[in-house]
Amino acid sequence: MNPPVQLAALRRSLPEALLSALQSLFGERLSTAQAMREHHGRDESSYDPMPPDAVIFAHSTDEVATAVKLCGSHGVPIIAYGAGTSLEGHVLALQGGITIDLSQMNQVVAVHAEDLTATVQAGVTRKQLNQEIRDTGLFFPIDPGADASLGGMAATRASGTNAVRYGTMRENTLALTVVTADGRIIRTGTRAKKSSAGYDLTRVFVGSEGTLGIITEVTVKLYPQPEAISAAVCSFHTAADAVNAVIRTIQMGVPIARVEFLDENGVKAINAHDKLSLPEKPLLLFEFHGSENGVKEQAELVQDIAAEHNAIGFEWATRPEDRSRLWAARHNAYFALLQMRPGSRAISTDCCVPISRLAECILETKADCEKNGIIYSIIGHIGDGNFHVQMLVDPHDAADIARAEGINERMVGRALAMDGTCTGEHGVGLHKMDFLVQEHGEGAIDTMRAIKHALDPGNIMNPGKIIRW
Amino acid sequence: MNPPVQLAALRRSLPEALLSALQSLFGERLSTAQAMREHHGRDESSYDPMPPDAVIFAHSTDEVATAVKLCGSHGVPIIAYGAGTSLEGHVLALQGGITIDLSQMNQVVAVHAEDLTATVQAGVTRKQLNQEIRDTGLFFPIDPGADASLGGMAATRASGTNAVRYGTMRENTLALTVVTADGRIIRTGTRAKKSSAGYDLTRVFVGSEGTLGIITEVTVKLYPQPEAISAAVCSFHTAADAVNAVIRTIQMGVPIARVEFLDENGVKAINAHDKLSLPEKPLLLFEFHGSENGVKEQAELVQDIAAEHNAIGFEWATRPEDRSRLWAARHNAYFALLQMRPGSRAISTDCCVPISRLAECILETKADCEKNGIIYSIIGHIGDGNFHVQMLVDPHDAADIARAEGINERMVGRALAMDGTCTGEHGVGLHKMDFLVQEHGEGAIDTMRAIKHALDPGNIMNPGKIIRW
Repeated sequence: MNPPVQLAALRRSLPEALLSALQSLFGERLSTAQAMREHHGRDESSYDPMPPDAVIFAHSTDEVATAVKLCGSHGVPIIAYGAGTSLEGHVLALQGGITIDLSQMNQVVAVHAEDLTATVQAGVTRKQLNQEIRDTGLFFPIDPGADASLGGMAATRASGTNAVRYGTMRENTLALTVVTADGRIIRTGTRAKKSSAGYDLTRVFVGSEGTLGIITEVTVKLYPQPEAISAAVCSFHTAADAVNAVIRTIQMGVPIARVEFLDENGVKAINAHDKLSLPEKPLLLFEFHGSENGVKEQAELVQDIAAEHNAIGFEWATRPEDRSRLWAARHNAYFALLQMRPGSRAISTDCCVPISRLAECILETKADCEKNGIIYSIIGHIGDGNFHVQMLVDPHDAADIARAEGINERMVGRALAMDGTCTGEHGVGLHKMDFLVQEHGEGAIDTMRAIKHALDPGNIMNPGKIIRW
Repeated sequence: MNPPVQLAALRRSLPEALLSALQSLFGERLSTAQAMREHHGRDESSYDPMPPDAVIFAHSTDEVATAVKLCGSHGVPIIAYGAGTSLEGHVLALQGGITIDLSQMNQVVAVHAEDLTATVQAGVTRKQLNQEIRDTGLFFPIDPGADASLGGMAATRASGTNAVRYGTMRENTLALTVVTADGRIIRTGTRAKKSSAGYDLTRVFVGSEGTLGIITEVTVKLYPQPEAISAAVCSFHTAADAVNAVIRTIQMGVPIARVEFLDENGVKAINAHDKLSLPEKPLLLFEFHGSENGVKEQAELVQDIAAEHNAIGFEWATRPEDRSRLWAARHNAYFALLQMRPGSRAISTDCCVPISRLAECILETKADCEKNGIIYSIIGHIGDGNFHVQMLVDPHDAADIARAEGINERMVGRALAMDGTCTGEHGVGLHKMDFLVQEHGEGAIDTMRAIKHALDPGNIMNPGKIIRW
């Protein structure tokens, strides 16, 4: 599936002087090899690659700053790349230019266990961070599924399964080190838990998808590992019952740590992929964090709510290995579905609505998928009102793609009509730019554009994403 | 105490044409009376009033938009005014102009109990909102002490006693309606709990103190009233013991709802003002929210921690009237201290540091106050690492003021050296502009300035606050 054809016309030329300046700086850490460029010109979206002209691997904030200055002086785009796990075409080099890969900036800079904070270089992944802090008794909760880099997670305002309890990157990022478009290095905050000191630069850059600056370090909140964790799975006869049980749980204020929904298609896919034997019906996967008593109390309450919504069984997974197996299966759901149609690509989209509208939004979207005869699953972090639709398409079949895009468009329209958002956690990238306008209206988009123009007057930072210049 | 003298030179003239245009629009809701202008030219800071040229009372977002357009076309400043409870000179009309009072925009626009959200006009106060939603079983937790307006609370990124559990206006504002400097009306978000849809305009305006736009409506999160609430007070021999008990509580992850510190001076003042008989020693005031069992468990844990830090007693206040009395006394602390020195004014400042440094920061600041022989108290939302120093000065005694400002400056220096912030919740206003530069550095300040220039190119929105033009 190609990005719109006219984009090729925007490709800027790469001046020889810039290439040699970067070469002398980065040496073997600069590559113009076709495979390397293609690898960096794609993400997990269904777009065909749009490779940059060259890829450089940065080792320090200073190197990023130098590279940005060089690109700026030549008017050449620069695109930050972390783990490449974004879903809406975020890292495609639409106008060519330099991709700066931050994955080798993978040092945990400081862990302040006594303050419940850690500062990491942008390339540190969430699993790596949790591995490195394991002995402190703390953990970093945000879990978007993929083992994404913290820099990328901040840049896309990522969240995932634990957000219902712990919040998203918006709430959990205390400060960033950012290289701005003019190549300056700024720090956007401190390690204080709260602050009223001026404009909220941290949240200006969180979610800006590399279009305002390049995040090179991230300071995040950590949390004490809960005294007790338990998990449970529970099937339902209908998706409506499952979703309504969650709505009730949230409305009652149960401080649930995770609650994931998988429709029957999602369950079928992970049964096949992970050799499980879950009933092939809509499923909820719960996790509870707290004291021994607190976890018990929450779980009993949720079990009662589930029973009121005609739940089929409520199975406990108290052993860590059982929990891990279930969560691994959940995280494999994306790849599991892909295997249901060999040769296909997935169009994966998400939206988020006020919780009371969630059942309606999911059911109408499900009906739309059924009506269009597409292979799909709906999976969601539904405690937040956030769900995903994953649709399998033949990348060479325009009608197939159009069918999926139609479902996507109607889902977004539905979410917006419910005062929801066109993306709860995937971000805008290239794919949702029109939806963004639909959601915010021209006045708000102009305000965003004014910020973009002010912070990146040369339009070199990941150009062509989020908003039109 | 006057603002710097040279500011008077910045005062812009008020064109007759603007005044008559506003008069024909606002009629009796426009006032140029001296008393009205003076009332709107001051807040709770120690500055002498800097009155605007006129005050208008808006009744709708459209009226605000029209007023902003008119002011913009004449290059005249416009300053939003809510309850006038800010503390750093936020509403002083440094360059003259029009103050737009939003207190009559006091309608609760919508309560979506089933989604745990409410949308209110900017002039609705936090107490009014809680009164109006009482029957829904929900509450709005943010409590800065004063009965501030929600618009003002969003504009200053307010927080207060409950923030340790529920977060600040940063975390609890879902969307804003804002009149931008060009008089357009935008909405910055939706009612979805999370979103990755473009730049985070909500948080661009939260904390911008009226310098980027005027907030006319606020959509906030609500929470189920906890099943059980209990409160306790506990005295300590030393401030160090009290603060260290809180540090330990936070590090253990106890989900405490409120934990307030009052030093012995603060306790003395509220004893006198509220006719209480608390031991005149450093005090902690706790509140626990949760299930019956959860509250009991939290409280027992905290009681044990307090005992390990040599607490003197641990008294329960389970009856709502006892709790209310204690919290009322806490909220009166500011006025209570003022009465310790008749004719004085208070310089009230705050900072916020990483939790492990809190005892050190408070003790050094306390020692500095003692050394300088000033009448003061230190009070804090210390679960967040946030505390206040309130110092009484003779407004006619330059040496007295200089002494207090010296203490303030050293406190901020101390907080910044600990990777904290120059203000946890009061905001920058006029008083902390230099500290803001010290905290963020020139690069970050230039980034803020670029945003200000982009969103308010005519510098009409509350000019002279937060950052220098």
